[in-house]
Amino acid sequence: MDTTCIFCKIIAGQIPCHKLYEDDRVLAFLDLGPLADGHVLVIPKYHAVQLDELPSEDAAAVGAVLPKLAKAVSRATGTEAYNVLQNNGEAAGQVVMHVHFHLIPKPVPTTADPRLSDSTDSTDSPGSPGSGLGIGWPAGKLDQDAAAALVEKITAELG
Amino acid sequence: MDTTCIFCKIIAGQIPCHKLYEDDRVLAFLDLGPLADGHVLVIPKYHAVQLDELPSEDAAAVGAVLPKLAKAVSRATGTEAYNVLQNNGEAAGQVVMHVHFHLIPKPVPTTADPRLSDSTDSTDSPGSPGSGLGIGWPAGKLDQDAAAALVEKITAELG
Repeated sequence: MDTTCIFCKIIAGQIPCHKLYEDDRVLAFLDLGPLADGHVLVIPKYHAVQLDELPSEDAAAVGAVLPKLAKAVSRATGTEAYNVLQNNGEAAGQVVMHVHFHLIPKPVPTTADPRLSDSTDSTDSPGSPGSGLGIGWPAGKLDQDAAAALVEKITAELG
Repeated sequence: MDTTCIFCKIIAGQIPCHKLYEDDRVLAFLDLGPLADGHVLVIPKYHAVQLDELPSEDAAAVGAVLPKLAKAVSRATGTEAYNVLQNNGEAAGQVVMHVHFHLIPKPVPTTADPRLSDSTDSTDSPGSPGSGLGIGWPAGKLDQDAAAALVEKITAELG
């Protein structure tokens, strides 16, 4: 446990949460700043800042829980589509420095939805979460020679 | 195996890939449309469209592999920050209908980076991937009463 970490304090019961699931290695609870109804955080109890620092068993335990949590959230919210997002490092948008997976329902917008009128001028009240994760996808095209070199480098690191 | 699924064909070796890792349940390879150098796809061999349909053991196997792959990609590309993203359903941005986790390095932009000049007017050539995942985060604020009701509904679905 890191005594300065807000998620470690939640795991220790020092800070309350809207708990959804708990086992020996994993805790899941509602995000206080939801992007949509049913926005859930799934965290390992082991304190690691980034996923690459998390022991394999703990990462496996989180992975094992994701399908059943996703199904439960989907049924409870009536939202079939959702994103799972896990950010590592400030540059990647990580805010709390303890590994966490966001499970974010993606409501299908309706034409009656006032949020459709202008995405930059939000009509949401603070109590009404928005319409799920926004994704920017600046895709390139994989160069074959670069790919071969990259595979060599990554597999060398995998050992 | 779903004979119409491109990822199932890759798993079966009918379509080539830039393979990085393989075990009984998991395959990892380079994304052909990378958002950054070292953009990797990690997929279960079991064919499920959405994560909520994936058996727990297969999800655990994917989870177990993520930390070591993330570490290897990070070292190979020299990029410490990265995002893990897994989309479920067309509304959530899913394109290939077989569960896949994107592991996307997030390069820290430099002032010399021409991509900083205008994000909508990409100066990237097709062979030069962009600057990683873009994230839109329209956060609301969790209402306490709504939270209690939601916890009850989700935990009831968890059984």
